[in-house]
Amino acid sequence: MDALPKDLSPDVFVTAPDAMAPYLTDWRGRYSGAARAVAKPRDVAEVATLMRWASHTGVPIVPQGGNTGLSGGATPDSSGAAIVLSLERMNAIRSLDPAGNTVVAEAGCKLAELQRIADAAGRFFPVSLGSEGSCQIGGIVATNAGGINVVRYGMTRDLVLGLEYVTATGEIVPGPKRLRKDNAGYDLRHLLVGSEGTLAIITAAAFRLMDRPKARASALCGLVEPQAALSLLRMVREVSGDKLISFELMDDGEMSLIREYFPNIAHPLPSRHPWYVFIEIGADDFSIEECLAQALTRASDAGAISDAVLAQSETQAKAIWHLRFAASEANRLAGPSISHDVSVATDDVPALLKALPSAVSKRFPNALVRFVGHLADGNMHVIVFFPRDAFTDQAALETAAFQVNEAVYAVTTAFGGSISAEHGIGRSGCRAFARFSNPVERQLMQEIKRSFDPAGILNPGIIF
Amino acid sequence: MDALPKDLSPDVFVTAPDAMAPYLTDWRGRYSGAARAVAKPRDVAEVATLMRWASHTGVPIVPQGGNTGLSGGATPDSSGAAIVLSLERMNAIRSLDPAGNTVVAEAGCKLAELQRIADAAGRFFPVSLGSEGSCQIGGIVATNAGGINVVRYGMTRDLVLGLEYVTATGEIVPGPKRLRKDNAGYDLRHLLVGSEGTLAIITAAAFRLMDRPKARASALCGLVEPQAALSLLRMVREVSGDKLISFELMDDGEMSLIREYFPNIAHPLPSRHPWYVFIEIGADDFSIEECLAQALTRASDAGAISDAVLAQSETQAKAIWHLRFAASEANRLAGPSISHDVSVATDDVPALLKALPSAVSKRFPNALVRFVGHLADGNMHVIVFFPRDAFTDQAALETAAFQVNEAVYAVTTAFGGSISAEHGIGRSGCRAFARFSNPVERQLMQEIKRSFDPAGILNPGIIF
Repeated sequence: MDALPKDLSPDVFVTAPDAMAPYLTDWRGRYSGAARAVAKPRDVAEVATLMRWASHTGVPIVPQGGNTGLSGGATPDSSGAAIVLSLERMNAIRSLDPAGNTVVAEAGCKLAELQRIADAAGRFFPVSLGSEGSCQIGGIVATNAGGINVVRYGMTRDLVLGLEYVTATGEIVPGPKRLRKDNAGYDLRHLLVGSEGTLAIITAAAFRLMDRPKARASALCGLVEPQAALSLLRMVREVSGDKLISFELMDDGEMSLIREYFPNIAHPLPSRHPWYVFIEIGADDFSIEECLAQALTRASDAGAISDAVLAQSETQAKAIWHLRFAASEANRLAGPSISHDVSVATDDVPALLKALPSAVSKRFPNALVRFVGHLADGNMHVIVFFPRDAFTDQAALETAAFQVNEAVYAVTTAFGGSISAEHGIGRSGCRAFARFSNPVERQLMQEIKRSFDPAGILNPGIIF
Repeated sequence: MDALPKDLSPDVFVTAPDAMAPYLTDWRGRYSGAARAVAKPRDVAEVATLMRWASHTGVPIVPQGGNTGLSGGATPDSSGAAIVLSLERMNAIRSLDPAGNTVVAEAGCKLAELQRIADAAGRFFPVSLGSEGSCQIGGIVATNAGGINVVRYGMTRDLVLGLEYVTATGEIVPGPKRLRKDNAGYDLRHLLVGSEGTLAIITAAAFRLMDRPKARASALCGLVEPQAALSLLRMVREVSGDKLISFELMDDGEMSLIREYFPNIAHPLPSRHPWYVFIEIGADDFSIEECLAQALTRASDAGAISDAVLAQSETQAKAIWHLRFAASEANRLAGPSISHDVSVATDDVPALLKALPSAVSKRFPNALVRFVGHLADGNMHVIVFFPRDAFTDQAALETAAFQVNEAVYAVTTAFGGSISAEHGIGRSGCRAFARFSNPVERQLMQEIKRSFDPAGILNPGIIF
């Protein structure tokens, strides 16, 4: 067996250990692997050549975007058999049509770059998440990234009009189509979105662009309990209708971590509260600040919020959202933790948040449970922290992680919820997915996987 | 082989020829078939029993909603081997949550009933099409119905949160989940939406509900040409942003048919024009009529429209939309015609509409090409009419249909378009789908079909 395909130029591959290292460990340092090479093709033809070779030789291919995933879905295993496939050289914006409100970007284009280009054309690309400066288009499509604007604009899939991709056997499906409507056969686009590199290599995507709201208003509120946040959500919705863009909930445990690890971030709301809500609304209507002020006054009168600050400037709005976006990085710095990305019907969130800490502490009395997430979508991140010396080695952490996962997912499933609302299954979620998913659906998914990837070379060990 | 499953009560089945007849011919009378029975199960357990029996005996099952489809996808073949499966007895609204903005309806519930129930709860279910008084939830989900509100609210799939379904082998996948976010594994929901009864039996669906715009404004405009309609679209969008709900284009040939077959429908715009545009915008802002008036004034000044009427009352708005909705029925009454449901990038519509008549008349000089469709979505219905005595028999019509399809789809495909934007492939589109779809994608779809339906009993002859 050849170590690398001979019909690709050697400069497609990186094999020096130092140069490969950043591709072999995930962002949070949870998963490390080995690879025979990192491939960096320059066009879709080189991707197809690589996949034809891989399907003949059986060499596993692990597609990787900006390596910012939270489920270990882009890290190869430790065998060293795989090639990591980075699309970073294919990073062009192929077209932007401001009248038709569409943009076509290659997989390696960074999310922030796409946002910037759309903005420069007077349009708006609404996917927004903490890693937007590093994550790539191919990654947000392959993982169906969520983020803070889902309540108004949907997940990444809701913006994808079409895909260009290469199959496991190296066939190119050209595109991407920019059609708003296409009912010709099964929707393979939605099957590939969120398939985490296990069904095909996405090389480019066409997206809908949005009208950028002409005015925006942000606020940070302090609250006593999650039920009050639901009351606040109702009041904001009553006043602002479909203008609501973000509605994020965070507990004071999480906020304390951010204060600890990022002492220089400004705190627009000086008082401390058990819970915080971050709000953004946007519209073409310049009285939008009054609109949010009215909702906050109503919520304050009703006792739903204890205190609130309404951003008086763009700078202050940025400070509010900087705080929200610091959560993932603070969690990474704060020692051993096990995070979860669960969703339930929005009205069930308070009961879920109440049930989880006791379910966890029953088994791990020294664990701290912290919460941050997208309340309006019913999607909460549940992070279980342990003391720095809690585990003697990685194996002990993994055993604990399994037990914590079991506790969190059992409670979530009892509410009819999902064990992965936006992060995907990846490597970290496989055992839980096998245990908590519907067995009929999981079997159908495995048969789809076999249809797309008969040799099993695309991101093995991910999802299943 | 048993004629019917013994472990289902006989009153599940209709076998009397008169009672079966309405289920054996499609709404337009284009497709007729035969069946051993029409099954009308009362719950999901009866559906599962039927499917277990069918997968053992190999009896084909043809799911049918309100039988209003336009592609022959719900009509059995002429062999009489199949059972038509009507979900009309499973028509309950299982739940409606106005705070969470969700509704769960069974497959047999009529679309108009779902709209009515949502409206009574102060919410809005935006799928709207000519057949809404007859078509059923299961049908609009299985065919991913479009309609006149897609520009603002998306296709049916964009509103589906979760599905309850029965597999070809009779396994029940319970639900439907009401989660806003769920990234656990492949998105089977989007695979089933639009699969036209070939992958599973959808028994219930959970949908997002929308905030009902507090104010709406409608207008009917007369124009010289489609390019002017694009200018008008740009002006309406500039003034109204994302308030645009519908933007429909019709040619005078189609309008003449409606005048001929529905002489009693009021014509809010008395003057005649080569082209017409129907517009609706909606917002929470009661100055919305002024907003539309401003856009129309601007379009008139720029010469984009020749004349326009802005509805002055709810009654007048209804009259405008009544006219638009009469198109399908007028086409059905107007003698032999071959209809197409194509989409291209919105900006390409004028060039498409210019190219199509000459492509058709090259082969059929006595044919008339008429247009009606959803301009803002790039989706036009292209109806090719023949004189009443043009074809001596059905076979001659079918030969002509094949040739007309070839001409229309060749032009559409040259623009990178879809041969089925919203109607689906059904029975009528199979040959064209085989010829004009990407062969790699079509093969993947066939493998998915085999995974879901190994015995090939679910709606055979549809799509493939």
